[in-house]
Amino acid sequence: MSNKILVIAPHPDDEVLGVGGTIARFAAEGAEVYVAIVTKGCPPDYSEEMTQKGRQEALAAHHVLGVKETIFLSFPAARLDTVPHRDVNRQIFELIKKFQPDTLFIPFYGDIHMDHQRVFLSSLVAARPNNPYAPKTIYAYETLSETNWHAPYLTINFVPNVFVDISPYLETKLEAMQMYASQIRPFPDERSEETLRALATLRGSTVNHFAAEAFYLVRQVV
Amino acid sequence: MSNKILVIAPHPDDEVLGVGGTIARFAAEGAEVYVAIVTKGCPPDYSEEMTQKGRQEALAAHHVLGVKETIFLSFPAARLDTVPHRDVNRQIFELIKKFQPDTLFIPFYGDIHMDHQRVFLSSLVAARPNNPYAPKTIYAYETLSETNWHAPYLTINFVPNVFVDISPYLETKLEAMQMYASQIRPFPDERSEETLRALATLRGSTVNHFAAEAFYLVRQVV
Amino acid sequence: MSNKILVIAPHPDDEVLGVGGTIARFAAEGAEVYVAIVTKGCPPDYSEEMTQKGRQEALAAHHVLGVKETIFLSFPAARLDTVPHRDVNRQIFELIKKFQPDTLFIPFYGDIHMDHQRVFLSSLVAARPNNPYAPKTIYAYETLSETNWHAPYLTINFVPNVFVDISPYLETKLEAMQMYASQIRPFPDERSEETLRALATLRGSTVNHFAAEAFYLVRQVV
Amino acid sequence: MSNKILVIAPHPDDEVLGVGGTIARFAAEGAEVYVAIVTKGCPPDYSEEMTQKGRQEALAAHHVLGVKETIFLSFPAARLDTVPHRDVNRQIFELIKKFQPDTLFIPFYGDIHMDHQRVFLSSLVAARPNNPYAPKTIYAYETLSETNWHAPYLTINFVPNVFVDISPYLETKLEAMQMYASQIRPFPDERSEETLRALATLRGSTVNHFAAEAFYLVRQVV
Amino acid sequence: MSNKILVIAPHPDDEVLGVGGTIARFAAEGAEVYVAIVTKGCPPDYSEEMTQKGRQEALAAHHVLGVKETIFLSFPAARLDTVPHRDVNRQIFELIKKFQPDTLFIPFYGDIHMDHQRVFLSSLVAARPNNPYAPKTIYAYETLSETNWHAPYLTINFVPNVFVDISPYLETKLEAMQMYASQIRPFPDERSEETLRALATLRGSTVNHFAAEAFYLVRQVV
Amino acid sequence: MSNKILVIAPHPDDEVLGVGGTIARFAAEGAEVYVAIVTKGCPPDYSEEMTQKGRQEALAAHHVLGVKETIFLSFPAARLDTVPHRDVNRQIFELIKKFQPDTLFIPFYGDIHMDHQRVFLSSLVAARPNNPYAPKTIYAYETLSETNWHAPYLTINFVPNVFVDISPYLETKLEAMQMYASQIRPFPDERSEETLRALATLRGSTVNHFAAEAFYLVRQVV
Repeated sequence: MSNKILVIAPHPDDEVLGVGGTIARFAAEGAEVYVAIVTKGCPPDYSEEMTQKGRQEALAAHHVLGVKETIFLSFPAARLDTVPHRDVNRQIFELIKKFQPDTLFIPFYGDIHMDHQRVFLSSLVAARPNNPYAPKTIYAYETLSETNWHAPYLTINFVPNVFVDISPYLETKLEAMQMYASQIRPFPDERSEETLRALATLRGSTVNHFAAEAFYLVRQVV
Repeated sequence: MSNKILVIAPHPDDEVLGVGGTIARFAAEGAEVYVAIVTKGCPPDYSEEMTQKGRQEALAAHHVLGVKETIFLSFPAARLDTVPHRDVNRQIFELIKKFQPDTLFIPFYGDIHMDHQRVFLSSLVAARPNNPYAPKTIYAYETLSETNWHAPYLTINFVPNVFVDISPYLETKLEAMQMYASQIRPFPDERSEETLRALATLRGSTVNHFAAEAFYLVRQVV
Repeated sequence: MSNKILVIAPHPDDEVLGVGGTIARFAAEGAEVYVAIVTKGCPPDYSEEMTQKGRQEALAAHHVLGVKETIFLSFPAARLDTVPHRDVNRQIFELIKKFQPDTLFIPFYGDIHMDHQRVFLSSLVAARPNNPYAPKTIYAYETLSETNWHAPYLTINFVPNVFVDISPYLETKLEAMQMYASQIRPFPDERSEETLRALATLRGSTVNHFAAEAFYLVRQVV
Repeated sequence: MSNKILVIAPHPDDEVLGVGGTIARFAAEGAEVYVAIVTKGCPPDYSEEMTQKGRQEALAAHHVLGVKETIFLSFPAARLDTVPHRDVNRQIFELIKKFQPDTLFIPFYGDIHMDHQRVFLSSLVAARPNNPYAPKTIYAYETLSETNWHAPYLTINFVPNVFVDISPYLETKLEAMQMYASQIRPFPDERSEETLRALATLRGSTVNHFAAEAFYLVRQVV
Repeated sequence: MSNKILVIAPHPDDEVLGVGGTIARFAAEGAEVYVAIVTKGCPPDYSEEMTQKGRQEALAAHHVLGVKETIFLSFPAARLDTVPHRDVNRQIFELIKKFQPDTLFIPFYGDIHMDHQRVFLSSLVAARPNNPYAPKTIYAYETLSETNWHAPYLTINFVPNVFVDISPYLETKLEAMQMYASQIRPFPDERSEETLRALATLRGSTVNHFAAEAFYLVRQVV
Repeated sequence: MSNKILVIAPHPDDEVLGVGGTIARFAAEGAEVYVAIVTKGCPPDYSEEMTQKGRQEALAAHHVLGVKETIFLSFPAARLDTVPHRDVNRQIFELIKKFQPDTLFIPFYGDIHMDHQRVFLSSLVAARPNNPYAPKTIYAYETLSETNWHAPYLTINFVPNVFVDISPYLETKLEAMQMYASQIRPFPDERSEETLRALATLRGSTVNHFAAEAFYLVRQVV
């Protein structure tokens, strides 16, 4: 599918929730996968210690998945609407220029978290087709605990058109999620192993596979 | 929630896939639940024997769920587009007049099966607010193996705004589905116990419950 | 329908325009109704005197409707986009935690006023299903002079699926609106008694009642 | 606005409900207005006598409005889905060719009545821009008792972008509607004088006029 | 991209208008391309001679493009709504079973021609993921003189997410279109060489290429 | 069509890309056309010299088109999200009050550039129907290099319903664009003469004209 993949995550763990199995599969199949975490927790909501813990968890999870390199940007989490849009665009543009990925994964525009909405838009601006390093393929991913909680039909709802078979990689994804001890919750919280498994089962079954991750193709140039 | 419920199913088993747990719950809580199956299989696609078998399965499944009465209409399955729209409207209108339900469950307009699309529209016509027997509440339900297979964003996609907690009734729903031996398939087919369970888990978890069925509220008069 | 209701209004009078009759009905039927006004007019657009006048009008209107308690937040009116999104989320979250309503009324996401858009989103974030105090039911309401003025089909337009019969309460609603002397305008302005009456007539007639208020059900857990 | 106007109505009275005031205004201002009624009631639903009565009512109503000529086609009412689509296209094409209107009014695609949906589509086909007689402007109109009863957000809902001031012509419209004695109903039915008045009031007030009819512009070539 | 491609065209020339350059490119790159024409012109609209002429033109055009095999079905053109939906589904299913394509191109659901709408839906049914021969990838294509003439925002409008660079194949596409002498029209008709060239230029330029064909990805399983 | 026209452009050249031919035509036919440029380039992205150059180019282009007066506002380009929404509303309101246009052209809400989104919304607020100077007609225009690059179906996509024949004015539009030497790019960039010509050809051909500009009618009061 792809040789170089860049995954943009608003917060640590979004990339595992949405793309974990796909990262594991394509890394195993030889792709170079890069993950950029756009925000960091800031006082008073987060202590420096919590932020460092989150980053250690991310690195551990990415190690499980076979991520080649993790990039931590430092925009303030849960406050991305206070940062000039253009500044976020620029830093994502620089990442694209540096890594020159052929495939880009971005969060979904209809997620309830405004940080996700902002990162979606900034990523699309950074990846405009007149950017000489524009990735050939852009996918939006779903994030349990964000994507299902926005307003039915009033905001845009996630409906996938691409299904990646992760049957042999579901356990790896769940293992990676276990690295995010601070983020995982007991079922029936959406951020639980049971729910991740149910979503993968449903997405897989829709296309007659045992487990899948599902995406929306935003743009592809062939 | 409701004292009298009418569920309209295009084909036998749609009512269990979409509303089985909710039927079981409200029947247990004292509601009278009626189920109408709109079509029957016709030659050459279906033998009379297969049709009778399907109806026996339906009655057995409905017995498990606590359905009070099952009504079999006789429009030709998979050929509802060859029947004048008005004739279907009329028969559903007669059912509403006879049972005077306060709550109506209908299939989803965006299902890939044209029979579902037709039954949705005919049901809405039959339940127009100027009908003196118009139900106070109309829900559309999702049907595994129909709802997820239509075209993303080109046709209307199912996004629920009502979640019914069926945690204590999920096993009853699955038991009822087992009665439809001719319709159930081995996983990873969508029409399998594993997928039904995954969907109930996901719908439940979205609202912090162990299992739910999800609906779209089409209209409610309070 | 409900025992405890919380109505979130971006500015004083939105709650009467959108939910006035419903508040009057449910208060009369025994519900506890709370109204929170999110913004206050600020210099140079509004003098302190005007702000106090607006609040006095609100209290008088709420007295007519039978509101149990009115809460005034102090975010700057017509400038909500200059306040960090997260701060608004937090204060609405605190209100939900304090009053633990089972039903929440919020403005419509497609209203032309950016304050309304922001309050909609902040309310949904505050009422996420993993909030232990999450209301069971969330409705969006329409606001004359905001809802009809956004762009047809380019932004989301208001289409109701819930109709509350306010036939015996329409006069109470109009009386409450009279308390907002500073906000009411002569017909044919949308913010006039004639237009309120016409809207209630149309919404009622759609479901065969003399007068109704209409809402969009965002989420309900049964 | 226009010199020659053709209004396509699926059934007698749709043209008054949706376009009555606008017809009256433009006829008074000098335009030639033609109205085509696409269907006629057929046995067993309608006797020949009822059909003739409907046509007499139409002619009386059109006389009030100043319509220049009324054309009665004979497709079967409430059964337009049983007629080949192409045959309806053809007859509407012939009308356009004969009258060469610059402005065309057609019913709304999202009306709950399938006849309306079919007439909308057939009219658009007949008025394709490569038709040498293609009207320069095409408007879709709303029809009380059809437009408000389809499914919120699942089917396309009517949101107008054109408002025609009919303040001096509202009474003429209501007088024309009185000619349709067989179609008018006591309030709170939508097909009542009170509801027509409320809708005109609301549509007018939205653009600061006393009364208006509202349309959606489908296409205009300038 | 693909080894076996099946293009479904409602009428002869749709496949060249929508997919001509892409067929030429992938055939040149080694893919096997099959084209199925679903309808044939019937009396009284078309003489047998015209139908044969159309088929000869199709074969000549397909020869230019490098199509491996052309299949002519015999459903009646411009009357597909009079054929049971299920019969069209079946014949397309049989084609998929026979050729087992990995990629399927189908017309767009929002085209103004009802034949296109029907072929879209029948193709999706035939290619359901539980079909053991289901193609991995399904694209919808645009058709000049059909896609741009449906109703803005009322029906679904074509917005592409896949762009195939046909810079070296645009002239081949135009040459193939010349084979359809009976279908091509002088500019400014949409079915003219100038307009085909303009569309390819615009679609290409959007992604920084000299010429492209654009598609909407309906589903892909990776 | 119009006597006084006001075109709102987020940045210099948007007005030529979107409305250039229409401006030229209506100016030639006697209308007074005003153009307001909302933003100016700011350090560090733009030097004062570049800004002045852009303004000189705008004046030269507008001279070619026959614009009566150009107004330069000074909001910061590419940073409009950092300016209180209300301040932009106010300045556009003042322009409308001053020029009292009957027709207003604004950028499209779905353009990928956040400045365009903001200017769209601010313009609609400023032109609310209760503004005594509200223009009778509001059109949204498309902008090559902004409109086609947003996300298919996730954000609102441009679909025009108004086509202005600019066949005799296309060359004037292209000449005006040549004045923007700093903005024009070599083909296949979207901002090239070839692509402008292709778009005008396609938009024209859709309605059987040689060249057109296409718009979406947001609101019209007749």
